[in-house]
Amino acid sequence: MSRIVGTVRVVGAGLLGTSLGLALRKHGIDVVMADTSRANQALSIDYGAGREAAEGDNPELIVVCVPPDHTAAVVAAEMRAFPAAVVTDVASVKQVVLEELRATGLDLSNYVGSHPMAGRERGGAISGRADLFIGRPWVVVTHSGSNQKAIDLITDLSLEVGSVPVNMEPIEHDHAVAAVSHVPQVVASLLAARLISTSAQEISLAGQGLRDTTRIAASDPSLWVQILSSNASQVAPVLKDLAADLQKVIGALEAPDASGALTTISRAIEAGNKGVERIPGKHGGRHTNYSTPVVMIDDRPGQLAQLLNEVAQIGINLEEIKLEHSPGAQIGLVELSVLPEQEEKLVSDLTARGWRLA
Amino acid sequence: MSRIVGTVRVVGAGLLGTSLGLALRKHGIDVVMADTSRANQALSIDYGAGREAAEGDNPELIVVCVPPDHTAAVVAAEMRAFPAAVVTDVASVKQVVLEELRATGLDLSNYVGSHPMAGRERGGAISGRADLFIGRPWVVVTHSGSNQKAIDLITDLSLEVGSVPVNMEPIEHDHAVAAVSHVPQVVASLLAARLISTSAQEISLAGQGLRDTTRIAASDPSLWVQILSSNASQVAPVLKDLAADLQKVIGALEAPDASGALTTISRAIEAGNKGVERIPGKHGGRHTNYSTPVVMIDDRPGQLAQLLNEVAQIGINLEEIKLEHSPGAQIGLVELSVLPEQEEKLVSDLTARGWRLA
Repeated sequence: MSRIVGTVRVVGAGLLGTSLGLALRKHGIDVVMADTSRANQALSIDYGAGREAAEGDNPELIVVCVPPDHTAAVVAAEMRAFPAAVVTDVASVKQVVLEELRATGLDLSNYVGSHPMAGRERGGAISGRADLFIGRPWVVVTHSGSNQKAIDLITDLSLEVGSVPVNMEPIEHDHAVAAVSHVPQVVASLLAARLISTSAQEISLAGQGLRDTTRIAASDPSLWVQILSSNASQVAPVLKDLAADLQKVIGALEAPDASGALTTISRAIEAGNKGVERIPGKHGGRHTNYSTPVVMIDDRPGQLAQLLNEVAQIGINLEEIKLEHSPGAQIGLVELSVLPEQEEKLVSDLTARGWRLA
Repeated sequence: MSRIVGTVRVVGAGLLGTSLGLALRKHGIDVVMADTSRANQALSIDYGAGREAAEGDNPELIVVCVPPDHTAAVVAAEMRAFPAAVVTDVASVKQVVLEELRATGLDLSNYVGSHPMAGRERGGAISGRADLFIGRPWVVVTHSGSNQKAIDLITDLSLEVGSVPVNMEPIEHDHAVAAVSHVPQVVASLLAARLISTSAQEISLAGQGLRDTTRIAASDPSLWVQILSSNASQVAPVLKDLAADLQKVIGALEAPDASGALTTISRAIEAGNKGVERIPGKHGGRHTNYSTPVVMIDDRPGQLAQLLNEVAQIGINLEEIKLEHSPGAQIGLVELSVLPEQEEKLVSDLTARGWRLA
């Protein structure tokens, strides 16, 4: 049984809005999908994330999924248009949004902030997926004027889409995301910028470590200027601490034979060990639980289709597939993601059919 | 046919030595596995990576797979014990090792350095795997005194285990790995160290971005002290550039309303975008910029195989493929990576055949 019975109005048909619509539609909830861009709205609706708004809509809940700089204005407009509805937003900064809303003089008892800790590198409706929120924390950001009904409804929303609700005040939230999201973004961007001046031969040595440490450096600059400037007071002190530690390492590397230099380097790496150990395991995310056998195929047209035909004949549904091959190599590697209980059959049947498993 | 006919002696039964033994044994090559730790040696041999050394062994090739600080001494000892053999090592720093070897006064014509760009977070024989080197760059590090026979044999070794050989001089190598490996290690460690002071609730918000950016911070401090101090002259200047850029961002965040502050933040994120774009596909390769048309398919078995059959009929070779479908959506998205010059034909032919391109 769905926890939410009325209509949910989603404003903003990007990645989060579309994913939310898909997740709620799966549970049979009536979703209105609205976006100032007709193209985004149409794409999201085509994708199955909701319906167009109609005369007489009376949403129980409104979720504002627009960029941070626009969030307070859109929340305020929705509260004026639908005074009976509970309203939330999904902006990644919360104190600034609340201050802007308070400045409007509106009654904020029906407003509760949200921050679902979910995302992807690529944005837009086209990247939306119903399982985006599964197992992810959803910060329910209460303020002194939130009423309990609104808090409960937003908590229900987070549970409905498979998230784990976490209650925080706006400042607590902003402090936490500075450490776990905003500082890593700045650091990844600064690190990736070092690669601009590398030669093609140098960068050809890149391995998984470099890819992982710089992946989020592909993020959208306009979005991140909004996020970082809105949370500058929480982000700057953490970066200053990091800069001080960086200076110590640089000093040690500039005189590696000096007394204490190796200890300084070792302590920096050990502190990293301690920090990374604090990160908890994923919260039941589906992707961690796939088995991923790797099949080697000859690097010529038709081989992959042949493989996938045979996987279909074996009767196994692939969750994800990734093909990687280097133009110089004779073989390609196909990583098949399947449910763990299906791996044994897949591997044995493919082997019996003559495929080479890596 | 194996390119290597004689015995290969592997000294050091850790992750790299064991993986190398496993890969060579798969091709029927005689591998001797030696380690000063009897336990490591026995484990690696049990694992199938080679046999114990025997009286009268006359190795064609010796691969020294010990920590960087011990590499030169072990290489020298092996060259004295087996003067006819070609010797290489797999240390991640090359200039220091060469200098230490030159200081021994030994004839180094049979020595060529190596750096297979392969690894895993977990070390030790137990983590060894025969496919560790497949598709990875293997830097063949020549020096002014290397003879051609030795260079050819090491190149053959890299090809034998599925790697892509890349020729570099020691300083070129050290400069390259500073950028793609050593600086990312320092930065990931410093970033992860910020997490030590987070509360349990704060760290519970950690997402994939934080996990990726800090994963390598779990690396072994004693190994990294050796690597970083041995390559300090290449690593320090890159870290100093990064520190200067970090100070600019901190300045902007300390006064986000000041003129130019948002531009400074935006430029930092944009520079990260540019840097990360330079990283080639996972297994290396010349074509860093594939075109990636996205096809929408119905989310049911057989559709993907049908699509790939038709791509093969069109006569286009896929470089990479990524399938993503959400359980809630009515369609799946298939991202096809092709050479840019093939995109137009692929898109027009697929469209003509009735496929929907996103």
